[in-house]
Amino acid sequence: MKAVVIGSGSWGTGLAQVLCDNKVDVTIYGNCESEINDINENHRNSKYFGGIQIHPDLKATTDINVVKGSDIVVLSVPTIAIESVCKQIDEILDKKTIIVNTSKGFHPETFERMSCVIRENISEEHLSSVVSLIGPSHAEEVVIRMLTTICAVSLNEEDAKTVQETFSNEYLRIYTGTDEIGSEVGVAVKNAIALASGILSGLGYGDNTRAALMTRGLMEMTRFGVAMGGKKETFMGMTGIGDLIVTCTSQHSRNFQAGYEIGKAGTAKIFWETNTKTVEGVRTAKAVHEKARELGIDMPIVNEIYAVLFENKNARESAKQLMTRDLKPEMVF
Amino acid sequence: MKAVVIGSGSWGTGLAQVLCDNKVDVTIYGNCESEINDINENHRNSKYFGGIQIHPDLKATTDINVVKGSDIVVLSVPTIAIESVCKQIDEILDKKTIIVNTSKGFHPETFERMSCVIRENISEEHLSSVVSLIGPSHAEEVVIRMLTTICAVSLNEEDAKTVQETFSNEYLRIYTGTDEIGSEVGVAVKNAIALASGILSGLGYGDNTRAALMTRGLMEMTRFGVAMGGKKETFMGMTGIGDLIVTCTSQHSRNFQAGYEIGKAGTAKIFWETNTKTVEGVRTAKAVHEKARELGIDMPIVNEIYAVLFENKNARESAKQLMTRDLKPEMVF
Repeated sequence: MKAVVIGSGSWGTGLAQVLCDNKVDVTIYGNCESEINDINENHRNSKYFGGIQIHPDLKATTDINVVKGSDIVVLSVPTIAIESVCKQIDEILDKKTIIVNTSKGFHPETFERMSCVIRENISEEHLSSVVSLIGPSHAEEVVIRMLTTICAVSLNEEDAKTVQETFSNEYLRIYTGTDEIGSEVGVAVKNAIALASGILSGLGYGDNTRAALMTRGLMEMTRFGVAMGGKKETFMGMTGIGDLIVTCTSQHSRNFQAGYEIGKAGTAKIFWETNTKTVEGVRTAKAVHEKARELGIDMPIVNEIYAVLFENKNARESAKQLMTRDLKPEMVF
Repeated sequence: MKAVVIGSGSWGTGLAQVLCDNKVDVTIYGNCESEINDINENHRNSKYFGGIQIHPDLKATTDINVVKGSDIVVLSVPTIAIESVCKQIDEILDKKTIIVNTSKGFHPETFERMSCVIRENISEEHLSSVVSLIGPSHAEEVVIRMLTTICAVSLNEEDAKTVQETFSNEYLRIYTGTDEIGSEVGVAVKNAIALASGILSGLGYGDNTRAALMTRGLMEMTRFGVAMGGKKETFMGMTGIGDLIVTCTSQHSRNFQAGYEIGKAGTAKIFWETNTKTVEGVRTAKAVHEKARELGIDMPIVNEIYAVLFENKNARESAKQLMTRDLKPEMVF
């Protein structure tokens, strides 16, 4: 079994170390020479993990040709890079390979899910199937071998099982799933809800308000996911509520942090003037807002997030408005 | 509309203040004279809320006869007191009354849900219906009017709507529901999971592990609730994942705190030697463990909680064992 992880960021490094721990022949590919040297020479990835020592056998390279002959290629790059990376490695792959997707979001222009983008850009003779390896996981905790559970979701059950068996160990437990649509929609949309969770914290609201947001947010995610073709029950699992929990309640999340700053300021004005990082939740909020309107799905929370982000609406006003809508039964999917 | 809240604890006081804010004629009944005086004279409930000022019009009494003529009686007492309180007020009630249940747990001996206990102990001519007003809410936040959402669940939809309209305002939003079994099982079983969440934190585990526990815990809660006659989707709502979130992630929770101490110590030995408070999650874990075994339902997390609490099992060993079970698909209800 030969595996290559594309991307020397935090999650790529964390997953590569899992494979190393599991005695799989694995190499990280990255295009940043200093990061690659840091891994090979210092057994660290200081940019993401500071002084934490990673597995001494973990090797990395800047030569993309390393993917040749791989049984498994893990893509750990931002959603906007998936398309070009797939085109690049498709030129080098020489047999049917399992492509593991770990990105959580939609294509920036077409709104397509990541699995679809990958399938379109890897030719059939190089693709066994796409397996999305996603769920509630901060890389910062996986790299120190903290107990974590995630999901291997694929239309190809056999490949999902191969990924499950290859990555599972005593600190990483992997479940399999087949609802690709539900799972990929869940992990993407949750970034927008996490942004809102940050906004509420920034405004000074407490645990009750956050639980309300997450519960009602889950309802919206589910409604949206089902309309997109996913299964309702998927949203009760790792890639639904699980990923929502870990992102909405943790300081590690960039989406939460961006929201927190917006909440503290009261509006998104300063955020737009100063932010330079990619915040997936912002792009997702816009995409989901537009798609939901097109499909005629009621998503009051996402609509308010959109209004705060893109229409300069006062955040506290948004929260209050959500509370004073017409009273209704809870379960309306 | 006349309402009486039985119980001058934190949740009773919080809900009574909601009614007071909503201009409902409400009185708190309590049997502790100093607490009642504190409310009437100082407009505080110092035992639970320190120096926080509560509504100056909120009145309280030690005379149980106040329930006479009530349209709504809210029960805000521990699960073990529900039966006797019902017998007591049934002697005084003089018309069909909506009884609002706020307790989260099972009868200590019969394992019955609270709504059933109330129905058995209030005679038909005094009972319009039981409405469970439950969901993700710390009283400490409701009393300072923090945005909160909960559910009014009843077999009688009209009474559920009356409770929804009576209690809702700009900081408390109430949804209605009809799945009494699912909702009452959810809010009870979540206490056992919250205990486990505390244990994991005490052991030093992080956000990933907690999200794993909550997601897999929700799966067990759902499996159990469905076997008891509840609906699967109820567990996606306020009384399922919502209440689980607020209890598993907050220091306010007594269940979480008890678990935290057990986790820090490594076993429950010191907990049993020193604990003097009622920790609902401990009793619930025992009850659910036994009932699940009787029904043949697979509940690995609850079983480990039981083993840590009642068989002196090492807590870290329990967590590790849960991680290394046979690999499987995620969605098995």
